[in-house]
Amino acid sequence: MSNTRGVPGGDSRRNAFYAQSGGVTAVINATACGVIETARRHGDRIGKVFAGRNGILGALCEELIDTSRETPAAIAALRETPGGAFGSCRYKLAPPEKDEREYARLMAVFRAHDIGYFFYNGGGDSQDTAHKVAELGEREGYPIACIGIPKTVDNDLPLTDTCPGFGSVAKYVAVSIREAALDVASMCETSTKVFILEVMGRHAGWIAAAAGLAQHDRHDAPHLILFPETPFDEEDFLKKVRETVEANGYCVIAASEGTRYADGRFLAEAGTRDAFGHAQLGGVAPVLAEIVNSALGYKYHWAVADYLQRSARHIASGIDVEQAYAVGEAAVEFALAGKNAVMTAVVRTCDKPYGWRIGEAPLKRVANVERRMPKAYIRKDGYGITAAARRYLEPLIAGEAYPRYVNGLPNYVSLKNALAPKKLEPWAA
Amino acid sequence: MSNTRGVPGGDSRRNAFYAQSGGVTAVINATACGVIETARRHGDRIGKVFAGRNGILGALCEELIDTSRETPAAIAALRETPGGAFGSCRYKLAPPEKDEREYARLMAVFRAHDIGYFFYNGGGDSQDTAHKVAELGEREGYPIACIGIPKTVDNDLPLTDTCPGFGSVAKYVAVSIREAALDVASMCETSTKVFILEVMGRHAGWIAAAAGLAQHDRHDAPHLILFPETPFDEEDFLKKVRETVEANGYCVIAASEGTRYADGRFLAEAGTRDAFGHAQLGGVAPVLAEIVNSALGYKYHWAVADYLQRSARHIASGIDVEQAYAVGEAAVEFALAGKNAVMTAVVRTCDKPYGWRIGEAPLKRVANVERRMPKAYIRKDGYGITAAARRYLEPLIAGEAYPRYVNGLPNYVSLKNALAPKKLEPWAA
Repeated sequence: MSNTRGVPGGDSRRNAFYAQSGGVTAVINATACGVIETARRHGDRIGKVFAGRNGILGALCEELIDTSRETPAAIAALRETPGGAFGSCRYKLAPPEKDEREYARLMAVFRAHDIGYFFYNGGGDSQDTAHKVAELGEREGYPIACIGIPKTVDNDLPLTDTCPGFGSVAKYVAVSIREAALDVASMCETSTKVFILEVMGRHAGWIAAAAGLAQHDRHDAPHLILFPETPFDEEDFLKKVRETVEANGYCVIAASEGTRYADGRFLAEAGTRDAFGHAQLGGVAPVLAEIVNSALGYKYHWAVADYLQRSARHIASGIDVEQAYAVGEAAVEFALAGKNAVMTAVVRTCDKPYGWRIGEAPLKRVANVERRMPKAYIRKDGYGITAAARRYLEPLIAGEAYPRYVNGLPNYVSLKNALAPKKLEPWAA
Repeated sequence: MSNTRGVPGGDSRRNAFYAQSGGVTAVINATACGVIETARRHGDRIGKVFAGRNGILGALCEELIDTSRETPAAIAALRETPGGAFGSCRYKLAPPEKDEREYARLMAVFRAHDIGYFFYNGGGDSQDTAHKVAELGEREGYPIACIGIPKTVDNDLPLTDTCPGFGSVAKYVAVSIREAALDVASMCETSTKVFILEVMGRHAGWIAAAAGLAQHDRHDAPHLILFPETPFDEEDFLKKVRETVEANGYCVIAASEGTRYADGRFLAEAGTRDAFGHAQLGGVAPVLAEIVNSALGYKYHWAVADYLQRSARHIASGIDVEQAYAVGEAAVEFALAGKNAVMTAVVRTCDKPYGWRIGEAPLKRVANVERRMPKAYIRKDGYGITAAARRYLEPLIAGEAYPRYVNGLPNYVSLKNALAPKKLEPWAA
């Protein structure tokens, strides 16, 4: 613990804490790479970068991964490794007015390890945590720069043009549905006539919309997209399926896991809830297949991509990887420039040719605000995307950023993840 | 119709018929590319290559796609386009002793279009068809070179080291499970502990075995593989899942769609059958998830890759693409060399460094013979692969053969598929 902070001639370096939170993505490690490589370039002001083992739990439990133990090559390889290299978590801090204990513990850990920079990489719930930590620092008079870093395949953070992780899922979904559609088209005369791909997206249809990028004209797949935003009307859906099969010989459907009836019931409510209280979904594809088969008798197949879609680093979007790195890099630069309580953000400067730069958004305006997909992105009939959606989405899947392969498989890195020595008593939650 | 065949000074060229049969793959069009490009190089002996629209149905219905209408660039692009460019079918000819009508019709179409070469690209049922056509030509005294070309993701043809299409599914499955496992590992402390990926494979566990390539040591995913060859023992399975979660924090499972109980019942029997009489399966993953959840209470996720796995040209195996092309190229060369009633085959000359060449197998020894996976490829405990399996499988996923991308998506070709003028009365099946 430095006690010479700010003393002329003393070591003015302070340590950084970085953590990954919520569902991981194909590119969240590219952000970690951006944070750590940038911090290493500023060794005069930033000491060690400690990564929380399993997100904020790492701070609470004082399980701080000492990233200085990793080689430059290992850190560089994070750029092409999916998943969360330090572990992530679904854990939401209680509001301080309800329980101060977690906040007191965070302060103790920060003080013990001289944490002067707090980088929190996640979605809406995580930006709320970053915001609470910034308020905590202020309340306690403890100098700490809190910078949120966006991440979520759901693309639902406000004040950023997109969320790193989303572009790669979007690319995976668009590529996969184009490929599967070629398969179905080949066989439809004597075999499968209806194919359903279930994609992620509980409340917003961003990922389902991305499937629409595979469609050049209305005869191309996906012929129907089911959005959480459009109430599911079984009769109308079946009519559309029948018309499509009659016109094209087959029908390919991209269905949001969050597809729901007008009364709000999910088609595939599993009845369980995660730690944030969100309903855990899965299985809308088989439900739809059954609806189609029993009403129309068509032979069907269905796929549920589940985690495959958000971990598919092998088909990551090149621009997504770049932006994921950039929001991490900028977070460190913002902190060093004296900024606090902001999130790094992607700012679009032009649709075509696509232009972007890094900007910032105040955490208090980001936390707990969910960005919905604009109504203007969904076609009037409710089953496809508009030109405006295409204009927004297309740049986000541009470029390929292939990982290196050894013996036919991607050579993803596995870090040492050595913990820094503990200085405090164990945390009893 | 040429009537100057064999006459000195006359046109001795005869036309070729090529068709794709059964489930399509990521690389069956690479085989088509091999056939057509090679035939074009032998324009002195082969006239047009007609492709059957929807496989053998194209011959019966006299729907012959005139591939000479396609540009060299379009044909070359087949090499990187998944699905069956000319349409495939699930249609099995009745045995001639049961119904001669189909065979009489084939002869009429062949005569009308001067078909001297018959290239049939498919799995076991299709090689049986090729064999029957060869016998038909002999019986009728009609000169036709019948060459079978192997294709099947199931890898179950005998007398060939592997079946084009399999290597690419194998790579897709191994890459996908490695990626998803990194996702699960990141989150297991507070979220999903068990992840199940359902893969194709009704009777043989070749594809499930390929998932095992992602495992370096026993702590790596996939921790458990469920093969159709190993009777499913629920109690033992649950014990293994619990032990794995207790040791590693999470458990990743690759499950064959054909996973079955000791009495032969599939875990996910859908009750429907396809045109060949095979049971149509799907949904073993959710069944397993339910078994795990109700006995052990672990949070789970599951994915069903379905057609995504066999159409994923974006992550095709480089060696698979090469071999798919080569079996097509060799089929034409064999026919021109006077061979008949054989299938082109891949012959392995060395495991490491991997060596292979093209060989041949008599159709009568290929037809209706299913190659099972050797027992020696499954680990003694039934849940993993052996070193022998790895030695066999690893070369088959080597190399990447990326398609070209435009605007972030693979630029797959769509052919004109113009039909040759019909010369016969319509076929009434």
